Amino acid sequence: MPAYATNMRLKFPIVALALEVITIILFAVFVVYDDGKGHGHDGHINDTGHQDPPMMLYPMFQDVHVMIFIGFGFLMTFLKRYGFSSVGINLLLAAFGLQWGLLMQGIWHLDDGKIKISIFKIINADFSTATVLISFGAVLGKTSPVQLLIMTILEITIFSINEHLAAEIMGAYDVGASMIIHAYGAYFGLAVARVLYRPGLRNGHENDGSVYHSDLFAMIGTVFLWMFWPSFNSAIADPGFTQLTAVINTYLSLAACVLSAYAISSLVEHKGKLDMVHIQNATLAGGVAVGTCADMNIGPFGAMLIGLVAGIISTLGFKYLTPVLASNLGIQDTCGVHNLHGMPGILGGLAGIVAVALGKKDGGKATMQAAALASSLGFALVGGAITGLIMKLPIWGQPPDQNCFDDSIYWEVPAEEEENEESLAHADHSKNKADV
Amino acid sequence: MPAYATNMRLKFPIVALALEVITIILFAVFVVYDDGKGHGHDGHINDTGHQDPPMMLYPMFQDVHVMIFIGFGFLMTFLKRYGFSSVGINLLLAAFGLQWGLLMQGIWHLDDGKIKISIFKIINADFSTATVLISFGAVLGKTSPVQLLIMTILEITIFSINEHLAAEIMGAYDVGASMIIHAYGAYFGLAVARVLYRPGLRNGHENDGSVYHSDLFAMIGTVFLWMFWPSFNSAIADPGFTQLTAVINTYLSLAACVLSAYAISSLVEHKGKLDMVHIQNATLAGGVAVGTCADMNIGPFGAMLIGLVAGIISTLGFKYLTPVLASNLGIQDTCGVHNLHGMPGILGGLAGIVAVALGKKDGGKATMQAAALASSLGFALVGGAITGLIMKLPIWGQPPDQNCFDDSIYWEVPAEEEENEESLAHADHSKNKADV
Amino acid sequence: MPAYATNMRLKFPIVALALEVITIILFAVFVVYDDGKGHGHDGHINDTGHQDPPMMLYPMFQDVHVMIFIGFGFLMTFLKRYGFSSVGINLLLAAFGLQWGLLMQGIWHLDDGKIKISIFKIINADFSTATVLISFGAVLGKTSPVQLLIMTILEITIFSINEHLAAEIMGAYDVGASMIIHAYGAYFGLAVARVLYRPGLRNGHENDGSVYHSDLFAMIGTVFLWMFWPSFNSAIADPGFTQLTAVINTYLSLAACVLSAYAISSLVEHKGKLDMVHIQNATLAGGVAVGTCADMNIGPFGAMLIGLVAGIISTLGFKYLTPVLASNLGIQDTCGVHNLHGMPGILGGLAGIVAVALGKKDGGKATMQAAALASSLGFALVGGAITGLIMKLPIWGQPPDQNCFDDSIYWEVPAEEEENEESLAHADHSKNKADV
Repeated sequence: MPAYATNMRLKFPIVALALEVITIILFAVFVVYDDGKGHGHDGHINDTGHQDPPMMLYPMFQDVHVMIFIGFGFLMTFLKRYGFSSVGINLLLAAFGLQWGLLMQGIWHLDDGKIKISIFKIINADFSTATVLISFGAVLGKTSPVQLLIMTILEITIFSINEHLAAEIMGAYDVGASMIIHAYGAYFGLAVARVLYRPGLRNGHENDGSVYHSDLFAMIGTVFLWMFWPSFNSAIADPGFTQLTAVINTYLSLAACVLSAYAISSLVEHKGKLDMVHIQNATLAGGVAVGTCADMNIGPFGAMLIGLVAGIISTLGFKYLTPVLASNLGIQDTCGVHNLHGMPGILGGLAGIVAVALGKKDGGKATMQAAALASSLGFALVGGAITGLIMKLPIWGQPPDQNCFDDSIYWEVPAEEEENEESLAHADHSKNKADV
Repeated sequence: MPAYATNMRLKFPIVALALEVITIILFAVFVVYDDGKGHGHDGHINDTGHQDPPMMLYPMFQDVHVMIFIGFGFLMTFLKRYGFSSVGINLLLAAFGLQWGLLMQGIWHLDDGKIKISIFKIINADFSTATVLISFGAVLGKTSPVQLLIMTILEITIFSINEHLAAEIMGAYDVGASMIIHAYGAYFGLAVARVLYRPGLRNGHENDGSVYHSDLFAMIGTVFLWMFWPSFNSAIADPGFTQLTAVINTYLSLAACVLSAYAISSLVEHKGKLDMVHIQNATLAGGVAVGTCADMNIGPFGAMLIGLVAGIISTLGFKYLTPVLASNLGIQDTCGVHNLHGMPGILGGLAGIVAVALGKKDGGKATMQAAALASSLGFALVGGAITGLIMKLPIWGQPPDQNCFDDSIYWEVPAEEEENEESLAHADHSKNKADV
Repeated sequence: MPAYATNMRLKFPIVALALEVITIILFAVFVVYDDGKGHGHDGHINDTGHQDPPMMLYPMFQDVHVMIFIGFGFLMTFLKRYGFSSVGINLLLAAFGLQWGLLMQGIWHLDDGKIKISIFKIINADFSTATVLISFGAVLGKTSPVQLLIMTILEITIFSINEHLAAEIMGAYDVGASMIIHAYGAYFGLAVARVLYRPGLRNGHENDGSVYHSDLFAMIGTVFLWMFWPSFNSAIADPGFTQLTAVINTYLSLAACVLSAYAISSLVEHKGKLDMVHIQNATLAGGVAVGTCADMNIGPFGAMLIGLVAGIISTLGFKYLTPVLASNLGIQDTCGVHNLHGMPGILGGLAGIVAVALGKKDGGKATMQAAALASSLGFALVGGAITGLIMKLPIWGQPPDQNCFDDSIYWEVPAEEEENEESLAHADHSKNKADV
């Protein structure tokens, strides 16, 4: 194998260590533990927040944590030869992103010049990484770890600006973040993917597909996301019955979405068969789409209607829109994030406008909801395009077309099952890996 | 491949969408959020229920949720070519079943003509789906998605009648549902399997077995079920020390059960080797069998004795009884639910009778415990037989014998690992799946 | 296949059942439910412990439970042909160990002559099994189930003595157990591995390595351990802000550790590629190393510095130290527990000494911290050596060198994927497994 510019031996360690050291220095200057004596929290806090026990949200935090690290990580393992990167780079980006997110979100809410970390803050830090992991899905298999670390910094920084604008300045409601996480993350990623368009992959790539067991690994991600989505949409809701409403709306929207995703998958596929791509993704669209309205009084059946519609448009998007985006617009969206996060995120934003206009949320203004949706899309498209241009610089180790969707360019990969015995007989035995 | 009557292109989407639309209409009419101001809850509620914070049970709910969707779903992935259906159809049935269960259980407890959804209610809705997923195990690999949706409707409807009868009218105790979920679900499924008996599978089927990695996927299900079973058995117990008792009894019963299941597996197998079928299933029998008694004062050692016995009879059942049921009684029980849920469920019911007779539960009556056990078995066998007859109608897309235990009849299945490169080279590149 | 002395048909069932029966008898004599009316708890309890609701720690317990059974179990499935044993024997040892741990830890804290089980006690019981599962990693693939049950008894017994000495008598602080669990478990296991040294494996073994999907299964373990480690380090911390501190320190240490582990892995590997062994293990070293200090006022950046250093030394250990230990000292450490638990555990102990010396923990004494670290290492090395000698007796079914790292010596293993159809055509069809 020739020496590609993808050799990461110095670039990646230097970037990763430098980022971590800078982050630690910033933490040393700005970050302290929340001692419960501060003056304020960010906009999502309930009025009686300071009386809540400091660990009250911890089980919800852990649910969200599982979604970020197991959910997103394994959802992307569907590719046959890209599982190490899917779950491994997901871990890397989220681990760095949550630190960066704590800083970027925290600077808008300083308390005596300090960022005071609480469970509420680390939930929001996890949320900020979700935008990056959504965008990661759009460019999965076609980007280097260094490119993705750069994307993480820029995307979270821009996210925190848009979030502050939408939630604080505009006062829009988006408890489950259909707009400020899902739509933002999806269109940011699609803009990056457009800038990084690869004509050489126009006719597909042999590794851009699944095998039987990789699809099962992906279902681990799908099911954990599906189960814990009520926690995602309710974690930062006002405690009590408002939070209960967010849980129930999300639970029901997701349940209805499963039925419509399965139905449409069967309807549009060859001989009525189900397609794993749809099942892995479109069953989750109900969680995305109900996000903005989750804590509003839309009624259980309202939540179910949103889920039903989300499952339909998401599945149809995978079947009919993704190929068109790739062939006509040059947007190669590996995981179909447009169908899982993009369109359902917009649907969620629109549902929020309608729900607020119908008076389902005290204090909400439909115009501000619309402004927040527009802002999220605007920041995503412009921010993503600029980020994509920076990522396109030929110094970050981007893989050549033929090495896309292949772990072995950035990972030591063990031999195939069937080749094991022979290859290992010649392998270096001082370590547990076949070094091929 | 010829066009089987298993082509689901219209049947399945119509059934799934129609069911979901009907369900949404029923929700619009009957279902509202619990605002904490209602007059009553179902029979399991504690006396001070209305003072509890609305989210108090949420972590327990999520544990149960994981058991339903990851636990049951992955437990059944042991089959080498049926993993998509195991985890995917599990998701479909549970997502529909929880909606149906909310309605069927809710109509017994209307509050001003409405069903008020709380965390308690969605835990019970998840429970109602467990009966279906247990029965699914008995007919795994031999039924179509449409057949299984029909089973879901009927089984949950009958379950809610039996549950109301046993818990409310008879006043029997069954906190962990050994009788009303496990025994009921198992014998319901066995009755269905008997009606759907396939003589053509008398000599086995080449796909009715595991491969190495499918057994590991199944262990994900086993271990999550095993870990969270204390939540299943205690979720609806009275808060406080009663709930603690249910947790501890279940935790200890399961721990003892592991030792006896491993010991007996080794004792009865070839050269003392362990059998994965036993480990995946019989290690859980202690959770089933301690269910009825979980919140009773049986003592830690009492719980462990129940677990010890459950592990023994479950393992012996897999080894000696399952083959006899298949060959002599025409009951082809794919997952051996008789051994995991049936016999241990009856053992749990009997243990409950004894414990109540010994005064281990204030207010309990041994006769009512016995009546609840008999009722659960009766509703299961009669309900299952009737359901089986309806499922047997030749219009629901049941697979022919040779296509049993094979995902490819209802799913787009990617190429095998070893065939990938060639098959994908000719595949349609407009999507991420090999469409074979 | 000749009849090895590894035939477990009588030995294993007798040992397992005898242990369980003895344990149940001891439980009948000594163990009761905690009714909240006792006189005391063990040393980690908060001052107001008795007012806490009995189920308050339950969500934390379940997180720890997942780490023990999914985390440790799947982390060890990286070996290509040893996944059944990794997750299966992990379940066996932990299920027995938690019962034994309840007894061994409980006898130091009798209350009216009884051990009163609470959530706090079962968290500690789970903790006691962690020592065994760490040691299991050092001897993975080279020991029989009977040998490992013996190790479980002895290691937990000695652990409970050392824990009592360190925490109660010395009054050392070790909330996340860097010293009394991680360093102890690692050096105990390394001492056992030294005694069981196998010269025949000096040049490696063809099965001592991973395949692609076994590495993905291992990542399930890694990621669950990584996510829930804040619960491990904070579960028994004082409630409130102290517990919050333990969560935040662990969360941040782990995040920083990911960056340094990835950076160093790339730096030391062939062409800058990442090595899955490092990612699976060294990313967790930050959780180990911050354990002792987790509830101390070391500052968020202090926790991150500890994580950064832990990721570096752990990765370097895998790369450079493990081969030297194997070739020069005769310590064949299958999972590299020295790098994940040993060195980071010592680092954690040293950090604790420094932090206490700097006054970061009220009431702490640096000399007692140092004494606890020395005690943990001493008990581990002496206890492990004695245990190893007992395990070396030629009557426990230890596998011969050529059968190491191979499930098929103790498990019925299904046919390989590619051989299935043929082998199953001849298989016994009365059960669901190929009996080869």
